[in-house]
This record gives sequence, structure tokens and C-alpha cells, in this order.
Amino acid sequence: MTNDHTNQHSHPKSDLEIAQSAKMEPISTIAERKLGLDAKDLEPYGHYKAKLSLDYIKSLNDKPDGKLILVTAITPTPAGEGKTTTTVGLGDGLNKIGKKAMICLREPSLGPCFGMKGGAAGGGYAQVVPMEDINLHFTGDFHAIGAANNLLAAMIDNHVYWRENDKTGLDNRRITWRRAVDMNDRSLRQITTSLGGVVNGAPREAGFDITVASEVMAILCLATDLDDLHRRLGNIIIGYTRDKKPVLAKDINAHGAMAALLKDAMKPNLVQTLEGNPAFIHGGPFANIAHGCNTLIATKTALKLADYVVTEAGFGADLGAEKFFDIKCRKGNLKPDAVVLVATIRALKMHGGVSKEDLKTEDVSAVEKGCTNLERHLMNLQQFGVNAVVAINRFSADTTAEMDAVRKVCANFGVQAIEADHWANGGDGTLDLAHAVVEQCEKPENTFHPLYEDHTHLWNKIHTIATELYGASDIVADKKIRDQIKTLQEDYGHFPVCIAKTQYSFSSDPGLKGAPSGHVLPVREVRLSAGAEFLVVVCGDIMTMPGLPRTPAANAIHIDPDGRVAGLF
Amino acid sequence: MTNDHTNQHSHPKSDLEIAQSAKMEPISTIAERKLGLDAKDLEPYGHYKAKLSLDYIKSLNDKPDGKLILVTAITPTPAGEGKTTTTVGLGDGLNKIGKKAMICLREPSLGPCFGMKGGAAGGGYAQVVPMEDINLHFTGDFHAIGAANNLLAAMIDNHVYWRENDKTGLDNRRITWRRAVDMNDRSLRQITTSLGGVVNGAPREAGFDITVASEVMAILCLATDLDDLHRRLGNIIIGYTRDKKPVLAKDINAHGAMAALLKDAMKPNLVQTLEGNPAFIHGGPFANIAHGCNTLIATKTALKLADYVVTEAGFGADLGAEKFFDIKCRKGNLKPDAVVLVATIRALKMHGGVSKEDLKTEDVSAVEKGCTNLERHLMNLQQFGVNAVVAINRFSADTTAEMDAVRKVCANFGVQAIEADHWANGGDGTLDLAHAVVEQCEKPENTFHPLYEDHTHLWNKIHTIATELYGASDIVADKKIRDQIKTLQEDYGHFPVCIAKTQYSFSSDPGLKGAPSGHVLPVREVRLSAGAEFLVVVCGDIMTMPGLPRTPAANAIHIDPDGRVAGLF
Repeated sequence: MTNDHTNQHSHPKSDLEIAQSAKMEPISTIAERKLGLDAKDLEPYGHYKAKLSLDYIKSLNDKPDGKLILVTAITPTPAGEGKTTTTVGLGDGLNKIGKKAMICLREPSLGPCFGMKGGAAGGGYAQVVPMEDINLHFTGDFHAIGAANNLLAAMIDNHVYWRENDKTGLDNRRITWRRAVDMNDRSLRQITTSLGGVVNGAPREAGFDITVASEVMAILCLATDLDDLHRRLGNIIIGYTRDKKPVLAKDINAHGAMAALLKDAMKPNLVQTLEGNPAFIHGGPFANIAHGCNTLIATKTALKLADYVVTEAGFGADLGAEKFFDIKCRKGNLKPDAVVLVATIRALKMHGGVSKEDLKTEDVSAVEKGCTNLERHLMNLQQFGVNAVVAINRFSADTTAEMDAVRKVCANFGVQAIEADHWANGGDGTLDLAHAVVEQCEKPENTFHPLYEDHTHLWNKIHTIATELYGASDIVADKKIRDQIKTLQEDYGHFPVCIAKTQYSFSSDPGLKGAPSGHVLPVREVRLSAGAEFLVVVCGDIMTMPGLPRTPAANAIHIDPDGRVAGLF
Repeated sequence: MTNDHTNQHSHPKSDLEIAQSAKMEPISTIAERKLGLDAKDLEPYGHYKAKLSLDYIKSLNDKPDGKLILVTAITPTPAGEGKTTTTVGLGDGLNKIGKKAMICLREPSLGPCFGMKGGAAGGGYAQVVPMEDINLHFTGDFHAIGAANNLLAAMIDNHVYWRENDKTGLDNRRITWRRAVDMNDRSLRQITTSLGGVVNGAPREAGFDITVASEVMAILCLATDLDDLHRRLGNIIIGYTRDKKPVLAKDINAHGAMAALLKDAMKPNLVQTLEGNPAFIHGGPFANIAHGCNTLIATKTALKLADYVVTEAGFGADLGAEKFFDIKCRKGNLKPDAVVLVATIRALKMHGGVSKEDLKTEDVSAVEKGCTNLERHLMNLQQFGVNAVVAINRFSADTTAEMDAVRKVCANFGVQAIEADHWANGGDGTLDLAHAVVEQCEKPENTFHPLYEDHTHLWNKIHTIATELYGASDIVADKKIRDQIKTLQEDYGHFPVCIAKTQYSFSSDPGLKGAPSGHVLPVREVRLSAGAEFLVVVCGDIMTMPGLPRTPAANAIHIDPDGRVAGLF
């Protein structure tokens, strides 16, 4: 999810140009040569993308698992960190040093692609291809998720229209399910529907989220198989009765058709890196109101197919890694063997107080100051019992003295800090990192454990994360919210919590860089994702439908005279 | 587009069961063996669906064209006619008698699939497969069309949000572009957007159409290549200035990104019939506000690949065939060689005044009376200079005396009426029909011509269709509409017209069965589809967003224990 380097390095080529000049192998060749897959186990989507059949995935059950490596990052800044490029580069590096490795990434959303960010398939010489296909529709998973989301929405309003809610008790003033579209469209955030008279129903307030924010996305990413998908879809809360009892998707019999719409979206998508190594790109839930990592089924399948699996989590480690461990690993019985914490000298300087304009000037003391952020993340990772390596994602302005400062800080934690130059050099840029990661993975004992137990009270789960990881002194919430949590504890007390707060600070104040402590985390709202099986704890303003900037990236995207997509960056 | 037989015949199996028990060949085998295609010219979507590459299609330019056969029907009744099954059955029959034939169909929409109709891939033993894939997402074309439609919508509101409309002059009270979703969702017909304050924009009235009603769909279906697609998308009218000048999609620079979203959707989709014959299924515009047939690019490509191409048009011949001839054939320089007019004894009886409940009782005089409808369609087809054959789509209750009555009426026109039993017997059920169609195609001279000339005045184009085909004595419109047509004549006078009226009668009154005459066609509204390049003439209530019935088909759809879709009908 990064194009950080594009304006910083001196490549003459854009990411898309690098991607389009790559010589791709047919995906069936990659699948056969690198993963031992037969053509019949693959469902091709063109010559360079394929899905794995669910029957084949089932057949892998008894195989041993490879090593799982999570790529996460320090607290994000406008300078960029480069989790996706590091994940791709490390996968290529592991293959270069003779390991059978593959990577697992999230699928890009069309919204940011046409908005501010451009594409999201790595960058420089650490990319997955075909880049333009991955960014535009890919294999249709997100459209399928949007369709399933909107079928449920249409069935809910239809249920009320025909007054079938006399049977379920659904109160049409308490419908909570929103519609979804994979587009940045601020006009749809808050709307009134069913205007125009009786044939269109009774007007009510409603709204759209971007598809990646749909609970259906989170469900797809956590479901272990089609049965589990069906069960979870059925448990989605669509609204409440007059006496505030939840009404579920299965109460209006929508989950079967939703599952049918998602049967192909459940199959992991296989593509290749620029160096011809296999990559799953599958699912992409928000990292605030959801858990922010690729599908469980892709990760579990990759662990059966490769000896080393590198995957990434959204935002910084306080959000992304925590949710990866406490939600995804917990649900999927995964035990990560190593964690790569990505940092850039530039971002550390920003945490040390340097403005974006001054990043090219050497400033060792700012780097040292900014390292408080890195240190906090390393301490946090130790609490999960995982082995960490720091990857310093190289930019051209970085100096040796700045690098040394980071190495010194990490050494205090007994952690290696290793330069990685994959953006410019692909797998050759991560050989040292790859060796260091393998060293961590070879440690005899895996001591990973989630931060809290299932049976910990919901309130204490939030409290533990806030105090142990965020450096907060306490959490606060209005009585209404506290009562709500108390009620939810009865039926859903075993769910993990999914904290939605700003990704720009350990605190709930995006302005607090570095490693703030002593702050209080305000819980403003809780939302039950009963299908995804977690409790969303909202601690700040959360945007589930982005808008387009004044000059959207879409303005530059077009088809060139050779019929190829141009202008994606 | 029919499941008419399901409750009428005595097959023990549902359409889906027949489809799922079929032994499919890999689509690459069909493509190679039947069409001489190389694997590299195909872009597979799984093992049984593929798209043809645009480069390959371009390479066919100099090849001679095969014969083009249109399947159309009498005026539809609730009894059903069976255009899609007849198209499939005739394609199989032509192959059975040793001809190199393929068929071209429209893609089904998710909306009706989850609503009332169920699937739309033929029926009985005249189906295209894989049925469940074709009905659910297929190769993603409709989602791509929806995304392109909604990207434009988001860019329009964003344009106003940032006040960039100071440059284009777009009046935010005169935005005409609507959003789209491939779902039956009546709640979205009329909405208010951008509620919730300044960050969401200024509230305005808006709405959604079902994706198949989007002008983007009509454009995709008429575009000859990517350049033409790009040009047409740029010409879409998004709204008007304060002095009522049109503002176009290219004025906000949206057409490049829209074309990029549609680059794969432009490639025809290849599947197979139950008998292993090749079929393109590509595009599916509404047959009222648009022209109602599959893409031009699929039809033209099929003509290069096969000696006989069978395709269908929406609704009855008054709407579907007329638009096929006057819009699609005109734009694409196609000259149909034969037309098959599908009728059923049941439907003719309904035109003769019999109610749906009494259709199983023999009633020769009702059949004779209903044949006035058939006769009118045959007279109309003669006006286009095409050779027609009548196909009587067999139902089990039909009697010999009833059949003879139809044959006699047709003989008066010098037209053969031939029984077709493809629903029960596949290609074996259409051997006679296939021979008769070949006979028509072998006539030495092709006398096809559209009904009116490009340079005919728009008003006279409407008048010609109404009086020559519908049996109307005149057309009427309010002064406002007449003035509007006068203004449009200046810049768009060369466009064909696309009449949107009820499909249930030659007149604008759906209750008038048979062959009404002397009625007056009221023009209620005109809409300019400047990208699709036709003028929509609305003569009645037109629904561009259907609703779901009380018990939607979605309630029964699910995944069975073997991981297969069940409950689609």
C-alpha cells in the first residue's frame, strides 16, 4: 500500500511502467514450478491471475505449516513507511536465498486508486503484477462483496416494504445495515431513501460505506470455509426490534444468496512478484473498524504451500499487528514466527519533530528522538512473545550516521535493524533482511500468545490494549457506552475487540507523535460486528466513506494507443 | 430469458439440475475445435468461461462474414415465448445439421435473478453453461459497467463539491446523471444525497437505476472498439449549464478512467451450450430505454468465426427487432439474412382472449384470433426486407389442430411455421427449423434495409415507426416535447430513435392484445443518450429500477453441501 518512493528516488520509470515492462510468466507456470500445483487446481482469470479451488485447499489440511512472518510498521507519517514493498521485497529476498517463500497481501480498493493514492501493489522493483489488473477489478472479489452487501440491504427494505417485519419485529427506525460501493463518494455518506411515494417505500435515513468497510469484507477475511462464511453472514445484525433485540440476516433468509454471491470471492487469488515468485492477494478490510489484513484462508493456504509466508497488516503495529495477533491469529490458530517492523529514517525524523519539507537534511538527533516510537512498538511486540527484526526501508537521502542511530536503539532491545533496498533492487535489496528473518524463525520455541484471553471482560480487553500498548493511563466512556458494553458482555463477552482510533498516534490525538504516555483513551461508541465476531470500539472520528480530492487520480487514468492502461501511479 | 416451461412440461429436473449434470468441455477445447482459436487468443475465467482478446478480434477484420439470424418474438404475454431457448436450440440444431454455427446472447442481470425471474441462460435442454456462473457475476462485466457509471457520478458531485463547476458551468440543479447498481432495489429510485453538513457537500435529489439501464451499458453494447468506447463515454451528458447547454463527461475528464474500468468488459465472453457449441454472452442493455441486444463487438466477431450466427433481441419484434435493425444493424453495418419469429400456442391463445388459467384447453378459434398479432409482426418484418420463419415453441398441451391453424396463417404470408421442441430435446428438437433457416439464408439477394434514413427528421422517425409498425394513426406530444425535439434536431437529427413503450401491446396500452390499430402514440418525454447516440422516446411509464417481490428468488438460493449453488431457477 505505498508509493512513497516515487518522488523521492531517481527512477526514470513510474511503478506502472516498471510493472508493464516486466516479463511475466503464465500464472500456471508459477503455480506449478513454485508451488507444485496442477492446472486443475487453478481457476485462471486471464493468463496471469488465478484462483485456487476450494477442493484443492481442503486437500491440503494434513500438510505441515510453514513459518509465518508478519510485516508491520512504526506509526505512519506522511513520509511513508513501505509495508507492502517490504513484504514483496522480503518474499523475493527469501526466494533468492533459496527458501520456498510466498507472500500474502490485501487487495486494493478502487476508491483510493481513483482518489489520492493511486495503485496499491507495491512499488519500484518490489511489486506484484499485473499491476493494472490488480488495481482495477482484479478477479471481482470486491464487486462480489459489494453485491452481497447490497443484496442484503435491498432485502431488508423489501422486507419492510411488504410488511414482512410483522413477523421478525424489525423496527424500520432501527435498521443499522448500510449499503456499499467500491468508490470514494462522499455524497453517499448520508442519504434519504425511498422518496417519491408509496411504490418506493417509506422514506428513511440511510447511507453508503466504501466496500472495504463492509462487515461482509471482514467476514470473508475471517471465514475458514464456505460453511463458516454462511454461518457468519447469517449472524449479521441488520437492525433491532422495538424492544432492542437484534434482528439477523438469517431472520430474513438472506445469507444463502449472499454466500452464493461470494463463493468465488472465497478462493484466494494467485499472482506473481516482478521476480516471478508466488503471491496471494486476497481480501482487504479496513484497519480501523475491521482487522486490516488479507483473508485467513489465503494465509492458511500459503502456510501449506510454502516454507515461509510473509504477510502484512494495516497501519502501524499498535493497530495492525495487534489486530493481526488478537483477532486473526486467535481465530485462525496461527502462531507467527517472526515480525518485521518497518521504519524509514524519514518517518523517524517526523516523529522527532522534523517537518516534511526538511526531511532531506541529515538530523541524527531528530532520528534518535523519533526512535521513541520505534521503541514503543518493539516493547509492544515483546508482549505478544514474538521475535522481531527492524527493516529500515532505504531512501536516497538517508545517511550512515542516521542509520547507526537506529541500529543502536534496536541493539538495546536485542533486535537487529537491517537496511532494505528492495524498492530500487528487488530481492537483491533484502538478502540481509531475509537471513535475519530466517534466523528468527529457526528459534526452537514459538512463544507467541495473544494479549488477552477470550474470557477477559470486554471492558478489560479494551483497557489492556490501551494501557499495555498505547501507553494510556486509563480508558473512559459515557455511562450509556459502559452500559452497552455491560449488556454486550452477556452474549458476546468472548469476542475480541477491534479498536478504531487514529493511526497517526498511539493516543487518540493524531497530533501526538513519538510515544505519548499518560493519556486517556475515550471510547465514544461501540458497534457489534456479530458476523465478523468482534466488537468495534470507536475511539475517534472514523470515516467509512472517503471523498475524492480536488484533482482525483482518475483524471490522469486512460487507455493508451496500444490498449494498455496508463496514468495509474 | 425464459423459464416458461418449468411448470408446464414434465421434466423431473430443474434447469439448474440439468445444467449442473452436463458434462462440459474445457472452454479452450471448444474454442479450438469449433472456432479454430489458439489458447493465446483466449483469456480464461475459470475452465469454462473465457474472453477473446481484442488484438485477436482486430486480426479478424479481413475475414468474410457468416450469415446473421435474428431470433425475435410475438408480443409477450405471461404465457412466455422462449426467445433465449429458441436461440440456443437453433444454434445447436444448425450444428447438428453440419453447419458451423454459434449464438450470441445477452448477459443476465443479478436483479431479476434474485427477484422474480430466476436465472436467464435458456432452459430445459436448450441452455448455456455454466448456468450458475453466467447468472452470478459471470466475468464481471456488469460490475465494471456499474463502477464506470458510479465513478462518473462520484466525479460529478466532487466537481461541484470543489466548485470546479465554475469552470464548466455545470448547474448543480441540472445534474442528470444517475448512479447504478445491479440489484432490484426500489428504495434507491429516488433519494436525497449529501446530507449531514458541509463535508458531505450540498444536498440534492438523485437516484439509482439498475446497471442494465445505465447509458454506459448501451455504449458498451454499441462501441466498435476501445477508441470508439472512449469517444462515446466522453460524449455522455452529465447535466446542463444555467443556460441549458449540455455538459459532457469529457468536460470533467472522467472518460479515460471509465474506459480503463471497461477495458476487459469490452471483450466478448465465450461459453458453451449443453451440446458443446460455442456461445458469446456479452452485454445486456434494457430493451425499452436502450436497444436490448448483446454487444455489437460480440455479434461482429461471431460473424467472422462462424458461418451462421444466431442472436436474439429483447421483448417482441415491434421493440426488439425494430431496434436491432434500426439501431444496431445501422450502426454496425449488419445485414441480417433471416429472422425467426418465435410464438407459442399458449401465447397466441392469450392474444386471442384466453386467460392464463385456461391455456391447457384446446381452443383453435382463440389461436386464430390471436394470430392477428403474429400477422402484424410478419408484415412488419417484411418492411425491413428480411426473410422470416416462424418457430412454434412446443408445449405439451399444444394440439395438432392448433398448430395447423398457425401454419395456415403463416402460409398466407409465404412463411413457414415450424415446430421446435428444443426445451425437451435440445438441438434434435430444431432440425426442421435449422433447415428452414438455412434455406432463407441461401436466398441469393439480401434485401435488408432499416425502416428510415439517417436524415429523416426525428419527429418523422417516431411517426414512421408508430404508423408503419405499431398500427397507430398518429403520434402526439405536448408543445414542450415538440419544441425539445425541434431543438435536438439541430445537433442530433441524424441519431436513430429508441422507443420506450410497453412491451405488452403494439400500442401504448398494455391491455390491448392482438393487433390494435388506429390508436395514437403519446410521446411523454425524450431523453438524449448522446454517448449511445440515440434519442430515447418515452411513451409510457418506464421503470429503470425494479423492486423485489414479497418472496424474492434470493430466499431459496444457497450453497449446497458439495459447495455448489442451489435454488437458482
